Amino acid sequence: MDNKDKKVPEVVIRRLPRYYRYLQELELSGKTRISSNALSERMGVTASQIRQDFNYFGGFGQQGYGYNVRMLLDEIKDILGVTKGYKAIIVGAGHLGHALANYNGIKNRGFKIVGMFDNDNKKIGSECNGITVMGMEKIRDFIRDNGVDIAMLTLPKDATDRVADMLVDCGIKGMWNFASSELAANLTVPVENVHLSDSLMTLTFKINRNNEKPM
Amino acid sequence: MDNKDKKVPEVVIRRLPRYYRYLQELELSGKTRISSNALSERMGVTASQIRQDFNYFGGFGQQGYGYNVRMLLDEIKDILGVTKGYKAIIVGAGHLGHALANYNGIKNRGFKIVGMFDNDNKKIGSECNGITVMGMEKIRDFIRDNGVDIAMLTLPKDATDRVADMLVDCGIKGMWNFASSELAANLTVPVENVHLSDSLMTLTFKINRNNEKPM
Repeated sequence: MDNKDKKVPEVVIRRLPRYYRYLQELELSGKTRISSNALSERMGVTASQIRQDFNYFGGFGQQGYGYNVRMLLDEIKDILGVTKGYKAIIVGAGHLGHALANYNGIKNRGFKIVGMFDNDNKKIGSECNGITVMGMEKIRDFIRDNGVDIAMLTLPKDATDRVADMLVDCGIKGMWNFASSELAANLTVPVENVHLSDSLMTLTFKINRNNEKPM
Repeated sequence: MDNKDKKVPEVVIRRLPRYYRYLQELELSGKTRISSNALSERMGVTASQIRQDFNYFGGFGQQGYGYNVRMLLDEIKDILGVTKGYKAIIVGAGHLGHALANYNGIKNRGFKIVGMFDNDNKKIGSECNGITVMGMEKIRDFIRDNGVDIAMLTLPKDATDRVADMLVDCGIKGMWNFASSELAANLTVPVENVHLSDSLMTLTFKINRNNEKPM
């Protein structure tokens, strides 16, 4: 079955970063090839599901050989756009903004954080991991002059919608939103809403179930 | 079909916090009832899937009536354990640790952050949102004396495994891990690994695809 021209389902999209992580680990440990069964076991998905996933992008396996780790990793990097050197700004220079500016997981994947913005006079002018925090009035020119692709929003919930609209107007191509709100679905650019507490509640669900188990 | 005694699949578990969020919004906006079709549309899942999800917990709908918002919300809160007042500590008092200590999404869901730990002498003794950072040598007694349930780990990758083993030994019931590592699967307590960059890569995948579209 060839899925190549079909719309990629959200569940497949969300598996791609996991493939990326596992393949990177394999490469770091010196593995050059992985059987479709071993990959399946590692990912917790059937080998047939993996084949179907890859078919959305043309398919990368060879019958009887499995997958070439480096090649598969390169393909997935390409699909995920981590080779593009996307430029990002952080909007909101609070603790979370600082945490993102210092987060190696962003730099390692080829993203460049080129600016940081806040409207708090106490924060403007301060430095964070080599980046000087600028006032919000500079954001429009900065995005245009620097060709910024992504805005990482660490703003209070009530400011987020307004700022997001302005950023789209400035030409931002996508937004990574940490406000505990579902950023308006009517935006014309892709948005990823991070709901940290969803993951915390998944944990407590499991703790709860664990406690129910007979001892 | 009654799923009640079956193991709840991961995909269903991950939908529960989303049900929780949507129902809370509905309740805040004064809605008392939601039809199964409206809930389905809002969640992006079929009405039949929603019924199947709820059947894992006994089922909460009435034929022809839809769902009572308050009742459904209470059931889901209970399932997720957000009514239990779980006590948590933050291990690692860097920017991310501070961000979590100040994150309303945690407090709003009934979690209590009761302590914060670090092994950096410059951080020990400092205050964060009313919590004094303590040295790691105090963590064992603190967990025992305060009946701590959850550890939120914002540590460097290479310290995480060792600290996690120690925390399990201290009686921690679950861990929320922000190190960019898959925390050892052989731990005897539930662990939620938060891979922030997975979500960022999902975003760039979508930006990439957007750019491929014909103008």
